[in-house]
Amino acid sequence: MNSKNLNPNVSVDCVVFGFDNEKLNILLIEQKPINPSIKPQSALPGDLVLEEESLDDAACRVLHELTGLTGIYLRQFKTFGDPNRVRDVKDLAWLQTYREYPQARVITIAYYALVKMNDFSPEASSFADRVYWCDIHNIPPLAFDHNLIAAEGLLTLRREFEAHRIGFELLPKKFTLSHLQRLYEIILDRKFDKRNFRKKILRENILTPLMEKQQGVYHKPARLYQFNLEELQEHTAFNGNPIAI
Amino acid sequence: MNSKNLNPNVSVDCVVFGFDNEKLNILLIEQKPINPSIKPQSALPGDLVLEEESLDDAACRVLHELTGLTGIYLRQFKTFGDPNRVRDVKDLAWLQTYREYPQARVITIAYYALVKMNDFSPEASSFADRVYWCDIHNIPPLAFDHNLIAAEGLLTLRREFEAHRIGFELLPKKFTLSHLQRLYEIILDRKFDKRNFRKKILRENILTPLMEKQQGVYHKPARLYQFNLEELQEHTAFNGNPIAI
Repeated sequence: MNSKNLNPNVSVDCVVFGFDNEKLNILLIEQKPINPSIKPQSALPGDLVLEEESLDDAACRVLHELTGLTGIYLRQFKTFGDPNRVRDVKDLAWLQTYREYPQARVITIAYYALVKMNDFSPEASSFADRVYWCDIHNIPPLAFDHNLIAAEGLLTLRREFEAHRIGFELLPKKFTLSHLQRLYEIILDRKFDKRNFRKKILRENILTPLMEKQQGVYHKPARLYQFNLEELQEHTAFNGNPIAI
Repeated sequence: MNSKNLNPNVSVDCVVFGFDNEKLNILLIEQKPINPSIKPQSALPGDLVLEEESLDDAACRVLHELTGLTGIYLRQFKTFGDPNRVRDVKDLAWLQTYREYPQARVITIAYYALVKMNDFSPEASSFADRVYWCDIHNIPPLAFDHNLIAAEGLLTLRREFEAHRIGFELLPKKFTLSHLQRLYEIILDRKFDKRNFRKKILRENILTPLMEKQQGVYHKPARLYQFNLEELQEHTAFNGNPIAI
């Protein structure tokens, strides 16, 4: 790509969430090593916007270029514009290697995405040397202000989950009630009583029990469920009444 | 201000809501006339961001410069980045008169604000010739993509009101139940039955009845209420459970 087509002042960054039935993770890239004396940093997948590209298109393109992911639902959530957000000395060496105007102020539009971890196998390319999932409770120091962006992304997910149940896309198509409870607990950061949780969630009528059970587990296999999409849409529509469990 | 300090690619725009107990309004500016053959356009208050200024600071400064409003709670809600959003031929003449790079792509960070209309008297200055309140149901064709931004601002207010009751700042400190019902109806765009509305809202315990009644009205004066702020905070906190009426 011709770097002349890149807007030096505006970028996009993506907070991609994945759930492995146990932990909530975000997708990070590790920068290509510049020289042996500098330890490569990790960062959210992100890059400058092309001059003639919409922001949504930029987010899709950049995520695809760096991680191979495609066909993912991305949602803009906040724009970060601290004048010094890319001026920390720790970020300078890297910016100098791949930005035409490393001194330019960069305002970044942050997106979040929810992916079913089993359906996607990210692969590093472009200036990403490696791409990996990282537990949200164990995020290393990231480049630029990316720790802040990741934290705000999580806060947004929590709010949207509470208000509109956005977050169920993280589950596989068929899941157990334990997995669903775990998702509630990890997004909302609190524990639920197992019996109460099951009673409440089943009363809502958003789940359809299947005749199938879990396979390949050591414990007694649990029943699988899937979402009753029509009911769920009623419950989660932006114009409907939000419902809290 | 030295225009050299302005970032040519990034602006802020403000959707300021005001409620007059009857209608929901937004604040518009009318551009200074360029020449007699061109009818001045209306627009949302907005302008380019200074190179060394945060986005929140820019929104406050720009709103103050154009309308005199200050001390207002502004909240970022969405960034608009269609590559052609400031290239419509209708906007060219005006851009040429006051922008150093009228051809530059401009990405704008949109804010919304809620003001008690009685507490603020906006006054036009800078490149605003006139500033006025406009009923949301009667917005004229605006400059750039400002009709879209205003519509998305309204959608955001509606969503946040449903999920977190953000919107009560639009009411005066003391209000009648009719005014409160009217606010619900206009933001959510639907009618409520008067008796049911009163029953439900009083049951929530977020209102404190005052010993005062309305003054200067021709009909029988209604009792005034104010918010029970502690209860309201419980109900509206972002981390609490959203509640729908």
